[in-house]
Amino acid sequence: MKTIDDLKPLITALQEIQQIASAVALLSWDQETHMPLGGGEARAEQLSVLGALVHEKRIGEEMKRLLSKWLELETGKLQEGDAAWDEPARGLLREVWNDYSKSTKLPSDFVRRIGKAASLSHQVWVEARKKNDFPLFAPYLKKMITLKKEEAAYLGYDDSPYDPLLDSYEPGMTVKQIAPLFAALKADLVPILEKIMVSRVKLKEDFLHFHYPIAQQLVFGREILEVMGYNFQNGRQDLSAHPFTISFHPTDVRITTRVEVKDMCSSLFSSIHEGGHALYEQGLSPEYFGSPLGEAVSLGIHESQSRLWENCIGRSRPFWRHFYPILQAHFPDQLKTIDLESYYTAINIVRPSLIRVEADELTYNLHIMVRFEIERALIEGDLDVAELPGLWKEKMREYLSIVPESDSEGVLQDVHWSGGAIGYFPTYTLGNLYAAQIFRQAKMEIPELSPQIEKGDLLPLKEWLNKKIHRWGRQYRSGDLIRRITGEPLNPRYFIEALNEKFGEIYLF
Amino acid sequence: MKTIDDLKPLITALQEIQQIASAVALLSWDQETHMPLGGGEARAEQLSVLGALVHEKRIGEEMKRLLSKWLELETGKLQEGDAAWDEPARGLLREVWNDYSKSTKLPSDFVRRIGKAASLSHQVWVEARKKNDFPLFAPYLKKMITLKKEEAAYLGYDDSPYDPLLDSYEPGMTVKQIAPLFAALKADLVPILEKIMVSRVKLKEDFLHFHYPIAQQLVFGREILEVMGYNFQNGRQDLSAHPFTISFHPTDVRITTRVEVKDMCSSLFSSIHEGGHALYEQGLSPEYFGSPLGEAVSLGIHESQSRLWENCIGRSRPFWRHFYPILQAHFPDQLKTIDLESYYTAINIVRPSLIRVEADELTYNLHIMVRFEIERALIEGDLDVAELPGLWKEKMREYLSIVPESDSEGVLQDVHWSGGAIGYFPTYTLGNLYAAQIFRQAKMEIPELSPQIEKGDLLPLKEWLNKKIHRWGRQYRSGDLIRRITGEPLNPRYFIEALNEKFGEIYLF
Repeated sequence: MKTIDDLKPLITALQEIQQIASAVALLSWDQETHMPLGGGEARAEQLSVLGALVHEKRIGEEMKRLLSKWLELETGKLQEGDAAWDEPARGLLREVWNDYSKSTKLPSDFVRRIGKAASLSHQVWVEARKKNDFPLFAPYLKKMITLKKEEAAYLGYDDSPYDPLLDSYEPGMTVKQIAPLFAALKADLVPILEKIMVSRVKLKEDFLHFHYPIAQQLVFGREILEVMGYNFQNGRQDLSAHPFTISFHPTDVRITTRVEVKDMCSSLFSSIHEGGHALYEQGLSPEYFGSPLGEAVSLGIHESQSRLWENCIGRSRPFWRHFYPILQAHFPDQLKTIDLESYYTAINIVRPSLIRVEADELTYNLHIMVRFEIERALIEGDLDVAELPGLWKEKMREYLSIVPESDSEGVLQDVHWSGGAIGYFPTYTLGNLYAAQIFRQAKMEIPELSPQIEKGDLLPLKEWLNKKIHRWGRQYRSGDLIRRITGEPLNPRYFIEALNEKFGEIYLF
Repeated sequence: MKTIDDLKPLITALQEIQQIASAVALLSWDQETHMPLGGGEARAEQLSVLGALVHEKRIGEEMKRLLSKWLELETGKLQEGDAAWDEPARGLLREVWNDYSKSTKLPSDFVRRIGKAASLSHQVWVEARKKNDFPLFAPYLKKMITLKKEEAAYLGYDDSPYDPLLDSYEPGMTVKQIAPLFAALKADLVPILEKIMVSRVKLKEDFLHFHYPIAQQLVFGREILEVMGYNFQNGRQDLSAHPFTISFHPTDVRITTRVEVKDMCSSLFSSIHEGGHALYEQGLSPEYFGSPLGEAVSLGIHESQSRLWENCIGRSRPFWRHFYPILQAHFPDQLKTIDLESYYTAINIVRPSLIRVEADELTYNLHIMVRFEIERALIEGDLDVAELPGLWKEKMREYLSIVPESDSEGVLQDVHWSGGAIGYFPTYTLGNLYAAQIFRQAKMEIPELSPQIEKGDLLPLKEWLNKKIHRWGRQYRSGDLIRRITGEPLNPRYFIEALNEKFGEIYLF
């Protein structure tokens, strides 16, 4: 039987291309963290030149020559049949061909056109959001929607033109799966939210907004990251306008954060969140760097790792049993009179709000549904972008019972659409669902997990995730992976159960 | 007459290649400033992949096709004759062809071999220096010398195999020019040094080594950089083990420094020095970015810019008349009892020492001559590397009358030879000579220069340098450029005059 060793030349070629892609990643990291303002224009040019080079090489003659040794370029069928290869090799060839075939379906001219339009549209969005001027942005968004429809047509689909776009972020996922999943989820979430809204429990949270010196926040955040097993020998944390994780290689995975002096949660939970992403990237196989076996499965699974750490761990009682006294020692003036229970409930307050990135664990998903329905309608139908501000308000009222006064706090709040990232939003909620299902499994397989967490020992969980998820790269698709880990397909029940348990106890229902 | 506009396709192609080269530069900058330790191995691999890609493109089919439109690839002769082109276009074609022709003379296999050997030899040198173990390094250095002789043979030469190596750093310069120049310089420098050594003037400098908090040193350094006209909108300053300047584009030119709490001179003068380099890079034409017209002439001219700022300005009395009270205000505890005169003389103390990078303005050049003579003998003759430690001591005694006890403080102190940078050292002294000659011209052409400097107004000088040197890129070679600026070829007299004037006054001879 043939193995991954027979594919060595392919892996080497992919690694060389990835070295260029990693340089692009460094250019982006630098742009967000250190680049002087004046360098922006040259950097955009540079990103475009190197990005095009990567695309060129991914569909170039060398790749064609290598791939056609083992499979039919048109269909991806393995020339010697599936049985001739072992599982990792099969997974590798399947995913390489998939990437290759997607890339070749998009004409170079189209890639250039959409790249240019996205860059322009993004710039206008920044201005429009600042000025609360949706009509300024509308024609650029309209252009992006047209281009994304064109992209869907190039990529091809069976049911919905939304499918191939979603597939770019969550391979294998379709509207047919997501729409009923989200409907069921909504049916379960809304009653929980209603119970919370009518609860007589009133929680205090003013102490989260006392003055928390920035340097001290960073020190504590770093301690937590170290305890999670994030390896600072192979990573670092910087400041940026929006927190993100970026990897150049499993030995160099960087995270960023934003620190607000009047909000002790913002940097802390974003650090834990990005730390979860970073553990995934640091846990990928360096041996298969650059090939699908050294890459994350999907955005949904990636988000499951960040959400698991942020919510299942970082907002849990066992975690703070150990870390709250340490936090108090860092901020005695702010927290010495606040007991563990008050702190724990404060960081778990649920309340409908306007801004997605500030939403709590529960209502966050309702924000996602609003976006999913709108972007699906934009791509599948003839929804006019001019109607978006009104539609946004309508859906916010329906899902969250609150309505933004301005478009900046409404339809203009997210960066995604401006750059053409349509089909991305659902992966956030998928991440929450995967996280709950995976965490439940972890608790069953690591019987001592809760007491370990209460002692501040997070490494057994990290190692379990390494073993169950990270090390596999893209050998299994997300649907197969979750079945391998938990014995069943994605099931939103575990997320709902976890919310009921946590919030029932906090809000007494 | 044809102009630069007719060469637009060539410039565009060069710019695209330079975008990749700038990514390589960012990878290096990051490696020295921010990269986590564990990322080193993957980074080395990445630098090698991208470096090879740049080399490939510089001698690739596209470049061949473009160049052969206008010139004979074998000889560089312009097809329509020199008279058909205006001066900038002629300069551009001359330099592009030169680079191209040098690159093609080196077989790819040789480039790979020397790259690998240099990387290995550098690693061993780091260890050998730490352990004071020259014999450990000797076989690697021997290998590098053999390879550099091979390189010289590929590149070709008339008189000395040292010439093509020197030419890589200082295009057009030869042993025939440098050897007599250095001999004359030595004949003038040694008597000045002797007068200083027997002078009865004893200068105090202990206050330079009081405790100077790092953050405050950086703040003052930044103020000076701003006054020099270094544009922080298009640059930034970071910390690194060894100070350097690196450019990704004239709109993004970064410098680094190293700060020592017990030495207020180290970071300050290295910042002014790197600031001088950076002003050159920020002053290059963005329009011709990536082409020779947007590049610095030579290392010698580059060093003239850093030395002019560091020594002619930064160690001058007019400069400190303005800035010393400001420095005192930054460090009142350390400097309030020290008057301007004591400070000015302390930062100008001349004293033979073992380490080149710590040497004063005068003896620095004697260090360079020691290295020039040794590396020339290594390349031209059969000098055995085993003899180097002894030869080093002998030459140090001859030039500086002091002898290192260990090789770490002797022949192992500099990084250059380990990486194959042979022919580089002379450019440091050329820089000092160019600087003095250029600064003398500046004083003649800007009659108010001294009073301006005494008022802290350094911009007129910066603008004069922009106009006389920076904007031209490589349109003129260094010999032509200095003649254009000062009306005569490089003349060491001005450097000697400046030293005599300064040190005669300080040491009373």
